[in-house]
Amino acid sequence: MSERKFNQVGTRPIRHDGFEKVTGRAKFGADFSLPRMLQAAVLRSPHAHAKIVSIDTSPAFEVDGVKAVVTGGDFPTVTREGDRPLYNDSPDLAANIIARDKVLYHGHVVAAVAATTLEAARRGAEKIRIEYEVLAPVLDIESAMAPGAPILHDDLVCQGPAPIPSGPTNVARRTVFSGGDVEKGFADSDLVVEREFTTQMVHQGYIEPHAAVADALSDGKISIWCSTQGPFAVREATAIVLGIEVSKIKVTPSEIGGGFGGKIPIYLEPLAALLASRAGRPVKLVMTREEVFRATGPTSAARVRVKMGARKNGGLVAAEVEMHFEAGAFPGSPVGSACMCALASYRLDHYLIDGYDIVTTKPRVAAYRAPGSPIANFGVEQVVDEVAQRLGMDPIELRLMNAVQENDVAPYGPKFQAIGFRETLEEARNHPNYSAALGPNQGRGVASGFWFNGGMQSSATVQVNEDGTAVVATGNPDIGGSRASQAIMVAEELGIRAEQVMPHVGDTESVGYTDVTGGSRTTYATGMAIIQASQDIVRQLRERAAKIWNVELDDVAWEDGRAVATNGDAKTVEPLSIAAIAKQMPATGGPIIAHGALNAPTAGPGFATHLCDVEVDPETGKVTVLRYTTVQDAGKAVHPTYVEGQMQGGAAQGIGWALNEEYIFDESGVLENAGFLDYRIPVASDLPMIDTVIVEVPNPLHPYGVRGVGETPIVPPLACVANAVAAATGKRFVDLPLSPPRILAVIDGD
Amino acid sequence: MSERKFNQVGTRPIRHDGFEKVTGRAKFGADFSLPRMLQAAVLRSPHAHAKIVSIDTSPAFEVDGVKAVVTGGDFPTVTREGDRPLYNDSPDLAANIIARDKVLYHGHVVAAVAATTLEAARRGAEKIRIEYEVLAPVLDIESAMAPGAPILHDDLVCQGPAPIPSGPTNVARRTVFSGGDVEKGFADSDLVVEREFTTQMVHQGYIEPHAAVADALSDGKISIWCSTQGPFAVREATAIVLGIEVSKIKVTPSEIGGGFGGKIPIYLEPLAALLASRAGRPVKLVMTREEVFRATGPTSAARVRVKMGARKNGGLVAAEVEMHFEAGAFPGSPVGSACMCALASYRLDHYLIDGYDIVTTKPRVAAYRAPGSPIANFGVEQVVDEVAQRLGMDPIELRLMNAVQENDVAPYGPKFQAIGFRETLEEARNHPNYSAALGPNQGRGVASGFWFNGGMQSSATVQVNEDGTAVVATGNPDIGGSRASQAIMVAEELGIRAEQVMPHVGDTESVGYTDVTGGSRTTYATGMAIIQASQDIVRQLRERAAKIWNVELDDVAWEDGRAVATNGDAKTVEPLSIAAIAKQMPATGGPIIAHGALNAPTAGPGFATHLCDVEVDPETGKVTVLRYTTVQDAGKAVHPTYVEGQMQGGAAQGIGWALNEEYIFDESGVLENAGFLDYRIPVASDLPMIDTVIVEVPNPLHPYGVRGVGETPIVPPLACVANAVAAATGKRFVDLPLSPPRILAVIDGD
Repeated sequence: MSERKFNQVGTRPIRHDGFEKVTGRAKFGADFSLPRMLQAAVLRSPHAHAKIVSIDTSPAFEVDGVKAVVTGGDFPTVTREGDRPLYNDSPDLAANIIARDKVLYHGHVVAAVAATTLEAARRGAEKIRIEYEVLAPVLDIESAMAPGAPILHDDLVCQGPAPIPSGPTNVARRTVFSGGDVEKGFADSDLVVEREFTTQMVHQGYIEPHAAVADALSDGKISIWCSTQGPFAVREATAIVLGIEVSKIKVTPSEIGGGFGGKIPIYLEPLAALLASRAGRPVKLVMTREEVFRATGPTSAARVRVKMGARKNGGLVAAEVEMHFEAGAFPGSPVGSACMCALASYRLDHYLIDGYDIVTTKPRVAAYRAPGSPIANFGVEQVVDEVAQRLGMDPIELRLMNAVQENDVAPYGPKFQAIGFRETLEEARNHPNYSAALGPNQGRGVASGFWFNGGMQSSATVQVNEDGTAVVATGNPDIGGSRASQAIMVAEELGIRAEQVMPHVGDTESVGYTDVTGGSRTTYATGMAIIQASQDIVRQLRERAAKIWNVELDDVAWEDGRAVATNGDAKTVEPLSIAAIAKQMPATGGPIIAHGALNAPTAGPGFATHLCDVEVDPETGKVTVLRYTTVQDAGKAVHPTYVEGQMQGGAAQGIGWALNEEYIFDESGVLENAGFLDYRIPVASDLPMIDTVIVEVPNPLHPYGVRGVGETPIVPPLACVANAVAAATGKRFVDLPLSPPRILAVIDGD
Repeated sequence: MSERKFNQVGTRPIRHDGFEKVTGRAKFGADFSLPRMLQAAVLRSPHAHAKIVSIDTSPAFEVDGVKAVVTGGDFPTVTREGDRPLYNDSPDLAANIIARDKVLYHGHVVAAVAATTLEAARRGAEKIRIEYEVLAPVLDIESAMAPGAPILHDDLVCQGPAPIPSGPTNVARRTVFSGGDVEKGFADSDLVVEREFTTQMVHQGYIEPHAAVADALSDGKISIWCSTQGPFAVREATAIVLGIEVSKIKVTPSEIGGGFGGKIPIYLEPLAALLASRAGRPVKLVMTREEVFRATGPTSAARVRVKMGARKNGGLVAAEVEMHFEAGAFPGSPVGSACMCALASYRLDHYLIDGYDIVTTKPRVAAYRAPGSPIANFGVEQVVDEVAQRLGMDPIELRLMNAVQENDVAPYGPKFQAIGFRETLEEARNHPNYSAALGPNQGRGVASGFWFNGGMQSSATVQVNEDGTAVVATGNPDIGGSRASQAIMVAEELGIRAEQVMPHVGDTESVGYTDVTGGSRTTYATGMAIIQASQDIVRQLRERAAKIWNVELDDVAWEDGRAVATNGDAKTVEPLSIAAIAKQMPATGGPIIAHGALNAPTAGPGFATHLCDVEVDPETGKVTVLRYTTVQDAGKAVHPTYVEGQMQGGAAQGIGWALNEEYIFDESGVLENAGFLDYRIPVASDLPMIDTVIVEVPNPLHPYGVRGVGETPIVPPLACVANAVAAATGKRFVDLPLSPPRILAVIDGD
């Protein structure tokens, strides 16, 4: 595989949706409208924790133009008996979309109103009378786990291996991976480092707020247009919440202005659908930025304790990682995948990973790029850094000495096939940025990171146009340039140029079932479906040529986008281009179309090593990132520009998480910084150019060697920045974000 | 085949798009809108025939809000060199969409204007200054063919067998089919009847005016949303007119409010696309009813001469049919298919069919349901009726004596396979309506009719949903209930109910290439693609069951929608329903999706026999239809209700054509009745319930025996009504329509 010569894979064509997006013509969630459409608004809880005693919606109808109102009681009780597992597989799914008996965070939806204008819908919502019995909020892990803590869910039963709480609890699940004997390991170590870390809730910060339009017919059919990472996931989740069959629902995805995992869950679609059904008219529901912050899923706040033992020579012996993740109002933090990733990068004879999923009266968390892994990594890679520092070793050399390789077994089970972790460390070590001179108050950090990458189900359809170009249709909304990658793969197989392939993102009735754009699975898994389909197209093109030449299929080869006769007689015939064959489609059997479909095996794991140089202003505590370098194993970069874009984007998000971003709640549970002015994500002027080095160790599971690349880049930056700040200041920083006040507090606390 | 037992085929489920259409929620062409969309209007020629001396568009821009103007000179010169034949395969295609040097009918587009409001666009269009050199109009066949007639196209060269005009002419093409020796045949006949007939231009009368929205990006990509019978045909025609590749264009079809052939050609799409490209904003262009009448394609006015010889016993010996069809402004009348159909119903040793395509300064004709055949039939079936009458024979008996059967060769070439013409005659003869008593001034007419039915290219995709239902996606807009038929076919193959199949009409990137909904090909040809795909789905379902049971594929049969183990060991396992297998799709290989694609052979011919009873008011000339009976061979009626609907709808249109409809031009070529008030199509109160009898003689070319059914029903009514009026009055009526003034003129002329 690694020997394969590519013509299109590895090139950098302009993305097919580029003009549309650059010129503002692309249609995002809020751009869709229908004749007679109503606008909707939601009423949200003013309390972080309260029982709903009564709701009177009748005053809403006093507002002119109000056509429909729904509350939690209008939705069926959701059960999951017999349902197969899915993203949103939980009875809580419905309860997060609209509260039934209890509100569990400030901003929790309690009612939705559709009216002829948005203004009327909002005024209608304000008029709804709700009587609450206010309960004490639960705003951090300590108070959630304290004896006598207010319990969010009376029926919550903690899952997982003992010891776990019995009886009423806010601990939803415990996850444990262990191997060897950590106590023995620490006893055998020459050096043991142990630290505790904390991180705060942070939001994905996608630019486009959630938006949905729904229409509902009297025969029960529902059409939804929305911004999502997965139209089939929206269809399934909406079907569950509404208690109907998936086949009653059609979902058309819009372009998507960022998701990062946060547009996998649904929020608006069932509300819009039920309002539309009540009103007999289409309904549009669009979040404000404030609503996005208050009521969509950030990622967890967490407490991470890491203890690591090493020998003098730098060999890691044992590690223990204990993690408590806030799930927000309903179970389901990414502590499980944090446990998978925490120690996956290093060979360890003795390890114990112990994770807890804890509910608090904050918005329910959602997936955020490599969910959980950056948080675990923030602790583990700082401790690894400290071990190297205390042993007087180069941190890359220490990592190289302990790095997992092919045939090593990860703590969460699988045996690695070919992986490129060592290669990322070597490239980082050899990078000029690793030896650039540093000035006063400057420091250099190193961190590596791991993400397992997803597989899941994908379909793809490829067809040949009359002019010899091709169309590839999938069900994956294009978040990070997947259209271009898809076109490249078709072009590679057919022997044409990527510009000659039109990528299309279809609705749930026009393309085959496809799981979400997420998990870093799209170019890998949907890519395999595309390659399957394209290879079938090539076979059909050869069949048509064989028909035209009146020879056997085996007498026709496909070379450089042309059918070439290979039998003795036919060698004198001119090769037939795809365009020439396409012109003869009607006469040789009609349209040429093919599909691919699969449930892809879990993708090849992705590793990255990052370098970060910072300068810390000792007077203000401000951290300036001077250089940032990302080295990552892409397996094979189908479109290197977009791989680099993922590496740069993940690093930028991680730097923001490291330095500035955090949800700040007041003591009653009200988010105090629900806007981009107070919740500060990095802007261009905050960051240097982020350097990228792509390593290519082919993934043996994929015909081109592709690995997922979208998530790994956000894993190392938290620790990498913290290690750089530690190097610049001589202090360890264990609490995120490393904002000026916290930096100053540590420096001044000296 | 005829022995096959069907479960779903032949049932009458509610159409899947029924609720959507009945409740006004279906989105038709004019219902589509985009952010920042402009409205457009066109300026049309006030002359039927003129040279364009100069155009000054600058005054249009004086109107506030006008953003773009296009004229004929803005479009590339179209050539068709190397292009494959298609519906709109003509350089004239562009010239009909917008005049370049010459206007050729009143209402011919000369400019189009896009503005922020429709009012501004219209005012802008009015301000455009055009200098014309007015030429004499050519308004009928006689004056078009007269020596020294004004010539519409200087470069027109008449095509076809000699003798044909040489040098400048308005005769575009001659078509001849002949066999035997007609002169000898007439000499051998005991009776020769010869008559000349005329018909007028009539419009399809679809309720929804043409509408299109286009957007154009700076990279040359164009998106079009429009009401059409074929999105791929729109894509191809628009590409030709704009001089770009088809793959630069994506066409999304709306629901369609009638077409009948008239929504195969394009009118608005290239105008909207070029305006959008100029303005950098989406553009909507919607016709008024008046524009539909003045500038879209009606069917031809015609002159038909029929001469027929018979023996005393009723055996037909020879026939000669000469037809002159007006094509309107550009060549392409349906005289060719009229020639194919004219004498296809009868065994004749001697025949000569001679057709002429003639341009006149009227709107270019378009396809109209069984194009040409009703016009030829109006002459032939009246002469057959007169032969029977003069020989004192029952008109059905005479037809039965002469009717074509299997293995007879049609004048246009093919040998008939199994056909059901005789069966329609026998069913008509045995129908109670054929022996119902008639009163004074009442008469009964009989006429039969033929349409060859189309094949062409189709694709279909079928996939299985997680809940065990299925989706079928095609590129055929649903005009007459094709969604229901498609769902039935999938359900039949899979062993589920039609309600469990969701039919989807896709755009040109989400479904495989599919020719237009027309030619009575959809249920036949697209149906075959659907059956192909469904059978592949069944194979995959069996594969999955085999995997679940760990047996060979051959050990699994598919019975009644369930996988059944057939090997010895497995006979004890419970059958697996499609829903049970669907739940396990992820674990057994991922999504189940399949496609079918083909270029279908020309479909099995369709025959019909109609009966009509009328009463003619001798004082007013008004004809009242008392009873109307349609008997037709459907091969196999997939959804009998929609077959009956086609039979009733075709009869209703034919009765309107027979009794009232006609384009009335003034002497300068201005259409005087460009609206439904003056152009009178039948309304419910004009018609009795139309009785239907479906005959089923399976078509051996189709796995279920399906024949096209949409067009044949409009063939007999013109002659059938005329024969009934002849029976009621004792006079022959040879000029359409049989409106009160014309009836009175014949009666009073006595």
